[in-house]
Amino acid sequence: MLSEFDLIKRYFKRERAGRRDVALGIGDDCALLAPTPGRQIAISSDMLVEDRHFFAGADPFMLGHKALAVNLSDLAAMGARPVAFTLSLALPKADPDWLEGFSHGLFALADAHDCELIGGDTTKGPLNICITVFGETAPGHALRRAAAQPGDDIWISGTLGDARLALAGYWKEVAFDQELQAQAAPRLHMPAPRVALGLALAAAPIAHAALDISDGLVGDLGHILAASGVGATLDVDALPAGPALARQDIALRRRFTAAGGDDYELCFTAPRERRAEVAAAAELAATPVTRVGTIDAAPGLRLVDAHGAPLDLGLKGWDHFSVP
Amino acid sequence: MLSEFDLIKRYFKRERAGRRDVALGIGDDCALLAPTPGRQIAISSDMLVEDRHFFAGADPFMLGHKALAVNLSDLAAMGARPVAFTLSLALPKADPDWLEGFSHGLFALADAHDCELIGGDTTKGPLNICITVFGETAPGHALRRAAAQPGDDIWISGTLGDARLALAGYWKEVAFDQELQAQAAPRLHMPAPRVALGLALAAAPIAHAALDISDGLVGDLGHILAASGVGATLDVDALPAGPALARQDIALRRRFTAAGGDDYELCFTAPRERRAEVAAAAELAATPVTRVGTIDAAPGLRLVDAHGAPLDLGLKGWDHFSVP
Repeated sequence: MLSEFDLIKRYFKRERAGRRDVALGIGDDCALLAPTPGRQIAISSDMLVEDRHFFAGADPFMLGHKALAVNLSDLAAMGARPVAFTLSLALPKADPDWLEGFSHGLFALADAHDCELIGGDTTKGPLNICITVFGETAPGHALRRAAAQPGDDIWISGTLGDARLALAGYWKEVAFDQELQAQAAPRLHMPAPRVALGLALAAAPIAHAALDISDGLVGDLGHILAASGVGATLDVDALPAGPALARQDIALRRRFTAAGGDDYELCFTAPRERRAEVAAAAELAATPVTRVGTIDAAPGLRLVDAHGAPLDLGLKGWDHFSVP
Repeated sequence: MLSEFDLIKRYFKRERAGRRDVALGIGDDCALLAPTPGRQIAISSDMLVEDRHFFAGADPFMLGHKALAVNLSDLAAMGARPVAFTLSLALPKADPDWLEGFSHGLFALADAHDCELIGGDTTKGPLNICITVFGETAPGHALRRAAAQPGDDIWISGTLGDARLALAGYWKEVAFDQELQAQAAPRLHMPAPRVALGLALAAAPIAHAALDISDGLVGDLGHILAASGVGATLDVDALPAGPALARQDIALRRRFTAAGGDDYELCFTAPRERRAEVAAAAELAATPVTRVGTIDAAPGLRLVDAHGAPLDLGLKGWDHFSVP
C-alpha cells in the first residue's frame, strides 16, 4: 500500500531543475515564489468533482490534462503568463495506474506551459481535484471583465459547442454516430487553454475586457456586461461552431454555440480601430479568432441572426446549484 | 434556491476595503496580488474532507475557522506573514444556515490575521473544503525543514495532545467525563495558528528549522530530521501536555503528546546560544514555548524519559492512505 508521502514522491515530485522564480517547491510547509520585480501575481482556483465536472471512471490522463487546463484558461483570460500551481487531491484509494495516468496528463500540459507544480495536499476521500494556479502580469495589463467599452467589437477564439455536443452524445440528447462523437469528444476532455492568445492580447494591450467561456457564451458574456455596465448585440449565426457541431442543424448549432459550456475559448472585446492588431495577435498565437458582435451603451444582451433579426433562444448559463 | 453567483455574493464577497497589496479580489477570472517589492510569496494548500478531517454534521462556524487555521499554521511554520487566500468549496447543497456559520467562522479568523479572501470556486459535490493561502517573507528568512543543525535545541509551542484526547473521547477509546471532553474539544475544533510566533522566530532569524505539528510530533519531527540529514533525542516527559491530557495517566500522556495529531503547534530548532532570544520571541508572541530535546549529528530519533532512559512507544505518524 502506497503511503501519502510515497505517493507524492513517486508521482508528483520531480527531480529536474525547476523555474528560477520558484525559490522552493514541493516538500516543506509552504512553497516559495520569488516574483519578477514589478509584476503582479494572477491567481485562480478551480475544483473538479466526479460525476459533476467529469464522468466516474474518466480516463486519468485526460483528467490530469483538463484539471490544469481549466485553470490555465483563467490565466489566459487575464493575459497572464503561467508560473506555477498547487494540486490538492482527494482520492478514494491510491491506485498506481490512475496516479500514473493522471500525473502524466497533468505534467504534459504543465511542461508545455513551463508551469511548475510547487505543492498541495493529498488525502483520502471522494474524488476531488483542486488546482490553484499562479501567473504573472504587468500592472495595468491584465484583461479585466469590467473593461468593455461601448463600440468595442466582441471576439471569440477558436470554435464553440463541440464539448457540449459530445456531452449531448453521452447523455443521448441527440442521436448521432460514433465517428461524430469521436470528433467532438476531445473538445470536452482535452481543452486547449488559450494562453498564447491571452498573452498577445494583453501585451500591447490590444483587448479591453476578456474572460474564458466555461459556462456557455451567453451567460459568461453577461458577466462582462454586468461588470462593465454595458450591453451587447451578438450575431448568433456568426458564432464559430466546432467541426462536429457544424454538421448539425441550425437550431442545435445556435443553442450549443451560444450556450454550450466547457468551451474554454476566450471571449474578448477590443476597439474597432484595433482589428488589424487583433488579427496580428491571433496570427502570433496561431489561434483563429472570429468577430461576433458589438458592445452597446444600452444595457441588455440582444441576440440576432445573420440578417440582424432578433432571436430568442430561451437560453441561460450553467449554474452548479440550480441543476440536479 | 440560491444560485452559485448569489451564494458567492451573499456569503463570501465583502464590501469593505481590502488590503492594498490585493490589486483585484473576487469576481474576475483571476485575483491579482501586488507583492511587496523584494518579498517572496509563501504558498500552501490544504484540503479538508468530511468524515476524514472532520465529522459529518460538524459545526460550520468551527469548520470555517479550522479550514483556514490549518493553512495559516503552514504560513506560521515558514515564518510568513498572511496576505490572502482562495477558497474552493464542494457542497452537497446550498444551505443558508451552514453557509452563514461557515463564512462567519472563516472571516473571524481571516480578519484577526488581516488575510483577505481573493477568489476560489464553489460547486456541488461531497463536502470538501480546499484553501490555498498566501503569505510574504523576506528572502532567506523562511524557516525551512532542511535547516536543523546538530546541537540545536528542539522547541515546541503551546501544548500537545488535547486534540487527540478529544478524538479519543468521541471514538470512545478512553472513558472520561463530559467536563474533560469539553476542556479538550476546542483544541480539536478551533486550533490557533501560531502566526505571531513564526514571525518573531523568522524576523531575526532566531530559529533554524520549523514545521507545524499536524500528524503527530514524532512523525512530523521525522520530516525535519530527514530533510536536514540529522538525528535527534526527544525527552518525551518534557513534552507539554494540554490541560485535559495533563489529568490522564503517564502512558496516555506520552502517547498523545508524542504522536497525537491535529496539534497545530510549531516544532522548531534553534542554536542553544539563542535561548534568550527564543524566550523573548515567545514573550513577544504571547505564546509559551518548551525545550524538549536536541538535534544530534547521529541519524535516528531517540525517545527518552525524564531520566534519560530510552523509551519505545511503538509510535508512528498519521498517514491518510494507511488508515481505514
